[in-house]
Amino acid sequence: MDNRWRVTYYVQGNEKEARAKAEDICVEQTVEFPVDLIPEGSYIRREIVGRVESLEPAPSGGGYIAVVSFDESIAGGELPQFLNAVFGNISIKPGIRMIDLDLTPGLLESFGGPRFGVDGLRQALDAHDRPILCAIVKPMGLSTDELADMAYRFALGGIDIVKDDHSLANQPFSRFEERVEKCAAAVARANRETGYNSVYMPSLIAPASEIEKRARFAKDAGAGGFLVAPGIIGFDMMRHLANSVGLPLLAHASFLGSFVVNERSGIAPRVLFGTLMRLAGADIANFPNYAGRFSFSKKDCGEIAEADAKPMPPVKPIFPAPGGGVTLSVLPEMHRFYGNDVVFLIGSDLYRRGPDLVENARDYRKMAEAV
Amino acid sequence: MDNRWRVTYYVQGNEKEARAKAEDICVEQTVEFPVDLIPEGSYIRREIVGRVESLEPAPSGGGYIAVVSFDESIAGGELPQFLNAVFGNISIKPGIRMIDLDLTPGLLESFGGPRFGVDGLRQALDAHDRPILCAIVKPMGLSTDELADMAYRFALGGIDIVKDDHSLANQPFSRFEERVEKCAAAVARANRETGYNSVYMPSLIAPASEIEKRARFAKDAGAGGFLVAPGIIGFDMMRHLANSVGLPLLAHASFLGSFVVNERSGIAPRVLFGTLMRLAGADIANFPNYAGRFSFSKKDCGEIAEADAKPMPPVKPIFPAPGGGVTLSVLPEMHRFYGNDVVFLIGSDLYRRGPDLVENARDYRKMAEAV
Repeated sequence: MDNRWRVTYYVQGNEKEARAKAEDICVEQTVEFPVDLIPEGSYIRREIVGRVESLEPAPSGGGYIAVVSFDESIAGGELPQFLNAVFGNISIKPGIRMIDLDLTPGLLESFGGPRFGVDGLRQALDAHDRPILCAIVKPMGLSTDELADMAYRFALGGIDIVKDDHSLANQPFSRFEERVEKCAAAVARANRETGYNSVYMPSLIAPASEIEKRARFAKDAGAGGFLVAPGIIGFDMMRHLANSVGLPLLAHASFLGSFVVNERSGIAPRVLFGTLMRLAGADIANFPNYAGRFSFSKKDCGEIAEADAKPMPPVKPIFPAPGGGVTLSVLPEMHRFYGNDVVFLIGSDLYRRGPDLVENARDYRKMAEAV
Repeated sequence: MDNRWRVTYYVQGNEKEARAKAEDICVEQTVEFPVDLIPEGSYIRREIVGRVESLEPAPSGGGYIAVVSFDESIAGGELPQFLNAVFGNISIKPGIRMIDLDLTPGLLESFGGPRFGVDGLRQALDAHDRPILCAIVKPMGLSTDELADMAYRFALGGIDIVKDDHSLANQPFSRFEERVEKCAAAVARANRETGYNSVYMPSLIAPASEIEKRARFAKDAGAGGFLVAPGIIGFDMMRHLANSVGLPLLAHASFLGSFVVNERSGIAPRVLFGTLMRLAGADIANFPNYAGRFSFSKKDCGEIAEADAKPMPPVKPIFPAPGGGVTLSVLPEMHRFYGNDVVFLIGSDLYRRGPDLVENARDYRKMAEAV
């Protein structure tokens, strides 16, 4: 095993253009310097500049697939510089899409990944051999008491994870600390009645100076994990929370869509919502389900779930969490598609099914236990 | 003046489709909840759900321009939730591009913007009535002593800002702390010889748990500012650094390209590299110049510079910093285009012009003083 990590890029153009783009990536993402001014045979030219390992025609739609390798040292063992090196400047150049990542054992060790992963989260929730259910308290604008009442009802009905809507931050209609105290208490009260292990996960879409403080406050108040949005707070802040605070993390896709909406630029969903989320400490990676109101294909979703699960020791496997329009009626089909290791993120349907939220939640729990 | 902020979106489609998309934005970015389940006439339906203020055909190329307003309260005075609300979930929906932002006085006050801005930075650098020059120590792979020697030569030649290449983090070939100490000392030594006020700005593309620590170390070691990459560390971390550490910030475009490379999705350059950088505390906003090796148009660049400068009290104006292929020969033309309030980010040309880096730097200084 050499000490180089590999990135696979789709590059637009004919063979000559694609080769030029691949060679440009090698320079732009490392030395960003005229190669002819670097002494031939020097360490920098030999090891630091990236290398085109292969260039093959893309299987369909034109363009080429380039595999580029980089020396482990250029990441310096730090995730921000790794992101900078895999897709920093070249993100600004059209016609380049990062479609796969293959890290060295050293980098996998450095980044660490999730603290809980699939097995750890199943233990924490006492939920084995079945899909996990996640409901969302919403809409923004409700008072803390109203949100806490919903949290209680969802937990009473057997929903495993009751999370803040990602729009709930620290607004005047529901301040963070009060909400966390009341929602965590509400879920604990439901657990005493049901014997379940439901957890409440507040949102940590919060100022950089407040995030860790809020996380520690919430942990003390009985929260069982957090919603985080790495597109907003940064991937490395999520990794830091996984290392420092010690509760499960559900990563939300907010603000990340521009990386995936165009097929010939950005980052493939499986890398962004699979590999990168996992490397950066998510235990659960949210993304838009193929059957919902966003535009992900079944292929995208299947590849994300694959990237969440594939062996990448010591980085643990994580849960895919398809959301955005999940309903009770599509659950069996989604279960066939994703298997048991999935978190179903259920939004509106839990409200839409009827006025009794406990009953609606129980329907989901029954379905999750039956599939 | 009401208490609503306004976002202008380009939306793809015919009038009916565009209206549906604009109305979807109002819901998706706020309650993310079936509107028919929210009581009519309720506070949430009246104030919290976004409002389509206008919908007009786009001036060219089809599609529509929608202005959507949101109640100030939904941002909760916090930048991460503001980003979440202006472009969170809808970033995942194709055919929507954020093209303008108009904030309330309350939010401008909350976010604060840059600590120095144009006037403050000119004072710190003792550089009045002329463009500012910024050179870059590179390439990665050089030793700290080699980089410090370059920093010395650039400062000796009269370059105002000598910054780390954005690829320099904390790699084995040049550790952060040693580099900062030696480069800051080198620039101080040059200043003693020249009487100039050049500053050294190290890169803070660093782990979340280390950023503030590194910033304080660097400030103590004599650094005069920082290179930050909000696309990697998060926009609010940049804002936090502006508030807490108290040195000028140069914001780099790394990892942000996917927001701008496609004209019908993402965020317009003037909003991303202008308004958002400025709101989030950058004193200098880097972006690819129209004459360089990236794909920005002259129109994009002009609009970014406009967004950097337009009155937005109490948020100070900032410097545009076009880079990516700037050469001495294009400086006069760029000066005519951008005016005096510009930072020229000069990379390879300072190395390419000849082996004497001091002489090369002096040529730039002379040109900057003459234009």
